[in-house]
Amino acid sequence: MFQSFEVTARPEQGPPRLALLRAEMEKAGLDGFLVPRADAHQGEYVAAHDERLAWLTGFTGSAGFCAVLGDVAGVFVDGRYRTQVKAQVAEDFTPVPWPEVSLTRWLKEKLPGGGRVGFDPWLHAAGQIKAAQEELQGSGIELVRHDNLVDRIWEDQPEPPMNPVRAHPLEFAGESAESKIGRLAEELRKAGNTAAVITLPDSIMWLLNIRGSDIPRNPVAHGFAILHAEGRVDLFMASKKLEGLGDHLGPEVAQLEPEAFLPALETLDGPVQVDMATVPQIVADILGDRLAEGGDPCALPKARKNKAEIEGSAEAHLRDAAAMVELLSWLDAQPAGSLTETQVVTKLEECRRQDNALQDISFETIAGTGPNGAIMHYRVTEETDARLEDGHLLVLDSGGQYLDGTTDVTRTIAIGAVGDEEKACFTRVLKGMIAMSMLRWPAGLAGRDIECVARVPLWLAGQDFNHGVGHGVGAYLSVHEGPQRLSRVSHVPFEPGMILSNEPGYYREGAFGIRIENLLVVQEAPALPGGDEERAMLCWRTLTYVPIDRRLIVTEMLTREERDWLNAYHRDVAERVGPRVGTDARLWLDAATAPV
Amino acid sequence: MFQSFEVTARPEQGPPRLALLRAEMEKAGLDGFLVPRADAHQGEYVAAHDERLAWLTGFTGSAGFCAVLGDVAGVFVDGRYRTQVKAQVAEDFTPVPWPEVSLTRWLKEKLPGGGRVGFDPWLHAAGQIKAAQEELQGSGIELVRHDNLVDRIWEDQPEPPMNPVRAHPLEFAGESAESKIGRLAEELRKAGNTAAVITLPDSIMWLLNIRGSDIPRNPVAHGFAILHAEGRVDLFMASKKLEGLGDHLGPEVAQLEPEAFLPALETLDGPVQVDMATVPQIVADILGDRLAEGGDPCALPKARKNKAEIEGSAEAHLRDAAAMVELLSWLDAQPAGSLTETQVVTKLEECRRQDNALQDISFETIAGTGPNGAIMHYRVTEETDARLEDGHLLVLDSGGQYLDGTTDVTRTIAIGAVGDEEKACFTRVLKGMIAMSMLRWPAGLAGRDIECVARVPLWLAGQDFNHGVGHGVGAYLSVHEGPQRLSRVSHVPFEPGMILSNEPGYYREGAFGIRIENLLVVQEAPALPGGDEERAMLCWRTLTYVPIDRRLIVTEMLTREERDWLNAYHRDVAERVGPRVGTDARLWLDAATAPV
Repeated sequence: MFQSFEVTARPEQGPPRLALLRAEMEKAGLDGFLVPRADAHQGEYVAAHDERLAWLTGFTGSAGFCAVLGDVAGVFVDGRYRTQVKAQVAEDFTPVPWPEVSLTRWLKEKLPGGGRVGFDPWLHAAGQIKAAQEELQGSGIELVRHDNLVDRIWEDQPEPPMNPVRAHPLEFAGESAESKIGRLAEELRKAGNTAAVITLPDSIMWLLNIRGSDIPRNPVAHGFAILHAEGRVDLFMASKKLEGLGDHLGPEVAQLEPEAFLPALETLDGPVQVDMATVPQIVADILGDRLAEGGDPCALPKARKNKAEIEGSAEAHLRDAAAMVELLSWLDAQPAGSLTETQVVTKLEECRRQDNALQDISFETIAGTGPNGAIMHYRVTEETDARLEDGHLLVLDSGGQYLDGTTDVTRTIAIGAVGDEEKACFTRVLKGMIAMSMLRWPAGLAGRDIECVARVPLWLAGQDFNHGVGHGVGAYLSVHEGPQRLSRVSHVPFEPGMILSNEPGYYREGAFGIRIENLLVVQEAPALPGGDEERAMLCWRTLTYVPIDRRLIVTEMLTREERDWLNAYHRDVAERVGPRVGTDARLWLDAATAPV
Repeated sequence: MFQSFEVTARPEQGPPRLALLRAEMEKAGLDGFLVPRADAHQGEYVAAHDERLAWLTGFTGSAGFCAVLGDVAGVFVDGRYRTQVKAQVAEDFTPVPWPEVSLTRWLKEKLPGGGRVGFDPWLHAAGQIKAAQEELQGSGIELVRHDNLVDRIWEDQPEPPMNPVRAHPLEFAGESAESKIGRLAEELRKAGNTAAVITLPDSIMWLLNIRGSDIPRNPVAHGFAILHAEGRVDLFMASKKLEGLGDHLGPEVAQLEPEAFLPALETLDGPVQVDMATVPQIVADILGDRLAEGGDPCALPKARKNKAEIEGSAEAHLRDAAAMVELLSWLDAQPAGSLTETQVVTKLEECRRQDNALQDISFETIAGTGPNGAIMHYRVTEETDARLEDGHLLVLDSGGQYLDGTTDVTRTIAIGAVGDEEKACFTRVLKGMIAMSMLRWPAGLAGRDIECVARVPLWLAGQDFNHGVGHGVGAYLSVHEGPQRLSRVSHVPFEPGMILSNEPGYYREGAFGIRIENLLVVQEAPALPGGDEERAMLCWRTLTYVPIDRRLIVTEMLTREERDWLNAYHRDVAERVGPRVGTDARLWLDAATAPV
């Protein structure tokens, strides 16, 4: 079983660890120390070795940081974690609402006379430090590079991961590493840069057509790379991880130990392209005025999936849909009140595992029933495990990692007899989700230019939801992948091949939650008779084929176009997924996809 | 008659004037000189005195500039004017597509060895010069402040306008100048600034509750003002203009001649707040390091209309709607092929003038029939005047200036029997216009977050239009007023009281054009049963009540909600405007507003 329901927060362990850290601070002559939930690669998940924030504070959320001063220790968490943090940290820690309160504003308030605040230059992005330093000008507060004080006191700190790297076959990658290196090097030359530093693991995996398992849920291995404008790559990764690769890495890739990374940076001629949002401060320090801000050269090419990646992803989605249909048909056969959330999660993973292709789940399954469904990033534990009662809505958000693609699907399921209010809200969310699915839009637009389409049906009823409509998704890589997003803050234009989620929702605190999510891929829209001849337009191709709970739909609230879309979608679900499931599930599927 | 149909472009006058200007450049030791269509106040209209661009080049568009070098003279115009500029300027001038080609890029190409390019520091905004200087770094090209060389050679240059200023009654303004000055001064103190420089005429008019007539279509007078943080204003405006004001300006306003403006800037203590986007470079030069970038302090307060301004505007719109209904009923009685565009414009102004309240039209009426309707900013002249033929669509975009408000309305009218394709396109534009009118949205959002709502029906048919959905509108001030816009590029959050246009369109070059425009005012949305309790939402109140041509609507393309909106709207039009028109028009109106 990939997922665990263990309660990992142990608030009582925090205070003694905090005292130890403060003693180290004093020895080091520091007035403060920053402890982010981050490693040198700035990803969403970190290895056990890098769980310093959770070890120190007890807080286990996927984003946040602690600023430890002599008399106060602020735990900065965003809106998703305001409730969770209170339950997970001891009183010695002070939750701070972030980003409403910035680190620098808080430091200036707590250190009015100035002070020296230490940070580990591997764990903070250069752009982050640069901005903080500008904001702290004139405050007398200095950010001081230092080795990691937590590592000094964490006696049983797990070792950094050292798991084998596998080749990612061309059949799924669709383009050789040699070809990718060649065209990216050409872009570097065009930009006038001699090299680019790549520190994002999924960029390195994509570029070299390899996959790893150094952290949960993401098939990546930790390492660093330098792409040279002449068309070769230095890969800094423990040789132990690469043993099984054979000659997969071609002659254009030099294999070096991680320790060689910083010395190699010293020898580079400038300008060297880096992504300030993700490159560790220590890299920027070494590059100095050879540094050229310019982004990760893999980011956009990786986001534009090629034909093999799109078709692989489509296949992975059908395989994954079969597991979802098995789960949903089983779930429907259980009487209301007979199951708990963890049982659903366990059964779902079991369904996914029935096909041997499953490599991992793509994130911790969210299974929130009744009031738990209103907690957007709910992770069920033994303590919170709630029973699926009659009248509940169950929000089930999950995905799988397969060699040919990464999936992410959310369905909201009626448990027993559900109220009219829940159905009306569900139908509005569905209308928004359909409106986005049916959209065509002029090429050149970004997430912020179109995302409201999925919200309008809720807005008209005085409702909304407090998260973006969707995120980018990788091809057997991270389930949250940039730079494209279906969000009010994203200005990255959509391009054919980009995969995004379309997941409007609705959340009524203490009562119920709703979310419906399909993955979509951007494609060129076919010309329409009467359409503008010169205007290039884009549209979506759907990847996810899982029934949407008909029992929750108020049919009269749908327009004819919406009903037609839904019925056509369900017809496709039945045709494509039906042949992949057992007899019971197939009978269930036929009923679940009948026209409304 | 306010509007004229004169052909003002005289291409043959350009070359000799260009030669004179080049001779002056040589005398002044300059390699170039910039001639913008601008005055010191950066508004959309300029006085005859400031029509230097048109005088020099023949180009009469509302935006653009000429960069004169020794051997080439580039006329920079945006997408709206690409065709027009070719017809208006002689061969000695080279049209440049702007902003695709920036001034600095063009200068670097044309002056590869560098050079001295003169500009009049009154006519260019400080932000514009600052950006240009940064872009020119290292090029050897220097921007040199100089007195205006065009004024040296323009022998019959009209005098600057010197028209009387009138008091704007409290009944329409809704807030005394004293009160406005008091609260803006308090904002200045909060921002830590000692004063603010105000150079936008409509800001000065709004702040002091006065109106002028120095330029056409805008009831403003030219002048400058300094708002002091202690709560007083220095007004720099020719005393001759202010003679009729009596004691309207209170003791907190000092009246000074325009010549005193620059010396007064010398004496200010810093920091002095200025809007870099509009303040002339000469002001920034004098303020030096006392300058604080911070925007025009009147911009947002002016945009948030108070109750008197909103109700005044509503009344102005009903008065204006009566004129529109008279025109439309008259138009419908004329056989296809019997009228030309100028006759429609003339009759419309006649209808508006029948009510003595009309002060001016709010912009040159756009009346484009058939193919002319596809020219977005068409201004009919004696030469282009086309006949309204059977099967044409007539785009009629016009407005009035009244003491209680400024109007702007567009209707598209069927001439004779119109084709099905035109009707389908019209219906899509109407669906977008209705979708925006019916929208509710969460407080805090800006134009870019919601504007696509008006485009989606066109997008779904492979169509779109190349202008924003709407612009801000003043209260008996400019018909184009910032900072709020219903546009993909606007990030200014909507606030109650802001007036905007909602004007989606569709344009098929060489064939037909469509635009439907109502003015709307932002208001707090009433709570809905089942709506989110904590979520503040906004919605629109409609100001414009003019029938939408039912003959162009494909009823089956409308949803029930859209049809309900349209029928309710037309019921309101009949009820509110019916009592204000003559018997014939009233009979026509009853038919024009019958339910679909």
